[in-house]
Amino acid sequence: MKKIIYLLLLMPFFGLSQATEPSNADAVFIKKLSDEILTNGKAYDLLYELTKKVGGRIAGSPAMYKAEAWGVNAFQQLGAPAVSKQACQVPRWVRGSGDFANITSIDGKKQMRTLDVLALGNSLGDGKKVEGTLLAVQDFADLEKHKNEVKGKIVYFNNSFDATIVKTFEAYGKAGQYRRNGASQAAKYGAVGCIIRSLTSSTANDPHTGGMAYNDSFPKIPAQAVGPRDADYLWSLAKQSSNVKVSMATHGKFLPDTTGHNIIAEIKGSQFPDEIITIGGHLDSWDVNEGAHDDGAGVVHTMEVMRAFLAVGYTPKRTIRFVLFANEENGLRGGSAYAAAAKDKKEKHIFALESDEGGFTPRGFSFTAVPEKVAAAQRWLPLLKPYGTSSMDDIGGGADIGPLNRTFNTPLCGFLPDSQRYFDVHHARSDVFENVNKRELLLGAVNIAGLIYLVDKYGF
Amino acid sequence: MKKIIYLLLLMPFFGLSQATEPSNADAVFIKKLSDEILTNGKAYDLLYELTKKVGGRIAGSPAMYKAEAWGVNAFQQLGAPAVSKQACQVPRWVRGSGDFANITSIDGKKQMRTLDVLALGNSLGDGKKVEGTLLAVQDFADLEKHKNEVKGKIVYFNNSFDATIVKTFEAYGKAGQYRRNGASQAAKYGAVGCIIRSLTSSTANDPHTGGMAYNDSFPKIPAQAVGPRDADYLWSLAKQSSNVKVSMATHGKFLPDTTGHNIIAEIKGSQFPDEIITIGGHLDSWDVNEGAHDDGAGVVHTMEVMRAFLAVGYTPKRTIRFVLFANEENGLRGGSAYAAAAKDKKEKHIFALESDEGGFTPRGFSFTAVPEKVAAAQRWLPLLKPYGTSSMDDIGGGADIGPLNRTFNTPLCGFLPDSQRYFDVHHARSDVFENVNKRELLLGAVNIAGLIYLVDKYGF
Repeated sequence: MKKIIYLLLLMPFFGLSQATEPSNADAVFIKKLSDEILTNGKAYDLLYELTKKVGGRIAGSPAMYKAEAWGVNAFQQLGAPAVSKQACQVPRWVRGSGDFANITSIDGKKQMRTLDVLALGNSLGDGKKVEGTLLAVQDFADLEKHKNEVKGKIVYFNNSFDATIVKTFEAYGKAGQYRRNGASQAAKYGAVGCIIRSLTSSTANDPHTGGMAYNDSFPKIPAQAVGPRDADYLWSLAKQSSNVKVSMATHGKFLPDTTGHNIIAEIKGSQFPDEIITIGGHLDSWDVNEGAHDDGAGVVHTMEVMRAFLAVGYTPKRTIRFVLFANEENGLRGGSAYAAAAKDKKEKHIFALESDEGGFTPRGFSFTAVPEKVAAAQRWLPLLKPYGTSSMDDIGGGADIGPLNRTFNTPLCGFLPDSQRYFDVHHARSDVFENVNKRELLLGAVNIAGLIYLVDKYGF
Repeated sequence: MKKIIYLLLLMPFFGLSQATEPSNADAVFIKKLSDEILTNGKAYDLLYELTKKVGGRIAGSPAMYKAEAWGVNAFQQLGAPAVSKQACQVPRWVRGSGDFANITSIDGKKQMRTLDVLALGNSLGDGKKVEGTLLAVQDFADLEKHKNEVKGKIVYFNNSFDATIVKTFEAYGKAGQYRRNGASQAAKYGAVGCIIRSLTSSTANDPHTGGMAYNDSFPKIPAQAVGPRDADYLWSLAKQSSNVKVSMATHGKFLPDTTGHNIIAEIKGSQFPDEIITIGGHLDSWDVNEGAHDDGAGVVHTMEVMRAFLAVGYTPKRTIRFVLFANEENGLRGGSAYAAAAKDKKEKHIFALESDEGGFTPRGFSFTAVPEKVAAAQRWLPLLKPYGTSSMDDIGGGADIGPLNRTFNTPLCGFLPDSQRYFDVHHARSDVFENVNKRELLLGAVNIAGLIYLVDKYGF
C-alpha cells in the first residue's frame, strides 16, 4: 500500500482514470509486472537452454527441430493455456565445411596469409579453389569505374559501416546492399569471387555472415565476409600493390525445402477474444553462433512476457499470441505463413510487436502506424519511462510481423534496445549467451510487457 | 553544406539564434564534435594504455605515480595548452596477500569449502587466522534481534542489492551501509570477523571490494565481501545449521600518507578567462582490477573531450579545466585539494561535471543546481537527444566535484551512462578493459563534449 501511495505521488501528471486514458492503476500494475520480471524472471535461464542446449538453429537443420520441440515444451512448462505448431516450408541452406580465403602472393612473391572469413548465407560453392588477382573497391560506384578490370578477379568491397551514424541500424541499412548484392554485381563484370567487409562496428576481427541473394543473370560466384581487421589489411594491401593473388573456396548449397514451424502460445481474450495482439521473435538463427541476441533475446522476451502475465494473474481483454517465428534469417517463411493463415481464418489482428534487435538495455519502441495511433501510444511514455523507454517513434516495425501489416494493415511495433553493441555480435560467432546481460535482457521484457498490457487494456 | 541543411530541416523546433538560446548552429557544431569523436576518438586507445600498461592504481601505490606520469604525458601528447600537477596528501592502504575465508566444519563435521572473498578497502588485519561460528543476518535490524548471540562469532550480512530497483545506483545506495559500517556494527556486539554480500546484481561470483570505515569505539575486526553465489550458499547453509565454523584472515594495513596529485590540463577562455568550467574523472582505482569503468572511463572521457575541442579548433569563451582527480576511492583527497586551492586563489567556478559511472551507453545527466538552472539546461535536451541523452534531472552530481559545490555553491553535473551493467564490474576483478565497449565509451564523450560546449557558450 505504501508503494502505491509512493507511485501516486510520483505520477501527478495523470488525471483521473478515464476509459481510454492511462491511470495511476496502470503505473501500479506495470510496477508489479516489473517487480515480477526482475525478481522471478526466467528469460535468462530460458536463453541459456536455447543457446547452450540447442545452439545455432538455421532453418531446415536438425537443430531447428530441436529448437521447435524446446519452444513447445518451454511454453507448456511456463503454463501457456494453449500451444500449437504452425507448419511452413522453409529453405535449407547448408554451409558445408572447409571454406577459406588466403592471400597467396604479393607482387609475384609467394606470401601466405589466411583471412578469417565466413561465407555469406545462401551463397553457393562447389568447394573448388577459386584463384584470382585482388581488385579492391570502395563501393558500387568505384566498381563501375573499374568494371573493365574486373574479369577473372576476386573483388573485395571495402564498404563502410559508417561510425558517425549513432543509430547503428541506419549504418547497417546503408551497408547491407554489399552483402546482399555485392557478389552478383561483381560477377556481372566477370569476377570469379567476392569478399565484403563485414557489416560491423566491432573492434574484434570476427567475420559476420548474413543473407545474400544471387541475380540469376550472372554466374553464382563464391561470396564471403571478412572481419574488420582483415578488411583493413586487405584495403591497405590493395593500395600498395595491384598484384595481390587471392585463393578462396566455399561449400554452400541448398537441400530441398523442408517443413518448419511457428510455435504459438495463446491466452484467450476475456472481453474481445476475436481481437488478436501478436508478440514475437524468431526461433531460427544463423549456423555459426548460438543466436543469443539474434534472436534468442526476442524468443525469451516473448516467453517472459507471457510468464509474467500468468504469474501476476493478468486476464487480458484481448487474445494475445506469443509467437516464435520460423526462418526469419533467410526466408521470412514463418512470418509469411502466420499472416497467410490469419487471412484464411479471417482473423482480426489489431497490433503486432516484434523483438529482434537484441537483448540490450531498453530505449524505446518504433511503430508502423498512422500518426494518430503513434501519438496515442506516446501518451504512455511516462508509464514506461521508469523502465528505460524514452522514445516512441514512427520509424519502423519488424520483419516477421511485416506480412501482417501488408495483409491487414495491422499496426506494427518494434522493440528498440540500445543498438551500440548489436553489430559487434550480429551474425558473428560471438553472438553467444555470455554476451547477453541478465538485467538488460529482463528490462527488455519489462518494457514490452508494459506496452502490451496497455495495448490490451486500451486497444490500439 | 548539404549536411547543414539537413540538420536545419531536422530541427524546426529551434527559433532564430538568440544570445542565450541554443541555435541550429549548435546542432551543427555538436554533430561536428560527434563525427570527430566517433571517427578519430582516442578514448578507447587511451583506456587501453591506462588499464593494460598502468593497471590498478590505488592511492599511494607505485602504480599511482605511474598513472600520474601517464596522465601528464597523455595530456601533452593530445596537445593540451597547459598541464599541471596539484599535490595532495593521500592515504596508502595496502591489501597485503594471503587473505582467505573458509567454511571449516558443519555441525561438528569437518568440511572444507573456500569462499571467494576480497577484504574491504581500508579494513585492517594482522594476517592471523580468526575462527568463529557463523551468524548470518539479513540486515542491521536482524543483527539487533540477535545481538546477544554475536559474541565470538563471524557475522555474515546477507544485505540485499534490490533487483526491483531499475536505477541500480539507488540499490547501491541502500546496500552501501553494510559495506561501510557492517564490520563495526558487528564488532559492537563482539563479533570477531565480518563478511558481507557483495554490492552487485551480477550473475558471476566475483566478490566486490570498496571503501569501509571503522568506528574507533569498537575492535577493528577483519572485513570481507563474498561473491553473490557464495553469498547464496552461506545464507542457505545458515538456514540449515546454526553450527557452521568459519575461519578467515585479512592483511590490510595503512602505511603513512604520501603525496599524490591531481593532473590538470587547461584551455584558457577567450572572453571570460576567470570563469572556470571543470570536467573530470578520478585517476585512482581499487587495487584488484584495471579500473576500466571505475574510473578509467571518466579519465578518458575527460581527455577525449579536450582532444575533440582542440581537433575541431574550438576556442572556448570560458576557461575549461580537464582534471584527473587523485584518490577518490578511499579519501576524496584530490577533489578536496582541488576545491581548497580554488578557494585560496579566489577562483570563480561556474560549473563542474564528473564522469564516474562508467563507460556505458549514454542516457543523460544529473544536476545539483537551483531548479531554474536545471530547467535552462533542459532546453538543450533536443540538441543532445540524437546522441543518447534522454534525461536531465536534478538528482545528483559527483563525488570529486562535491567540494567545489560546498565551497562555492558551484552547480554540479554528473554524466549518467546506462547503469545496468555497472555493478557487474564495480570494484570487482572484472573491471577490465575487455568489458568496455568502444562505441559506448566514445558516445559518452560525445554527449559530455556537447554539454560542455553549451555551458561554455551560454554560461550556466
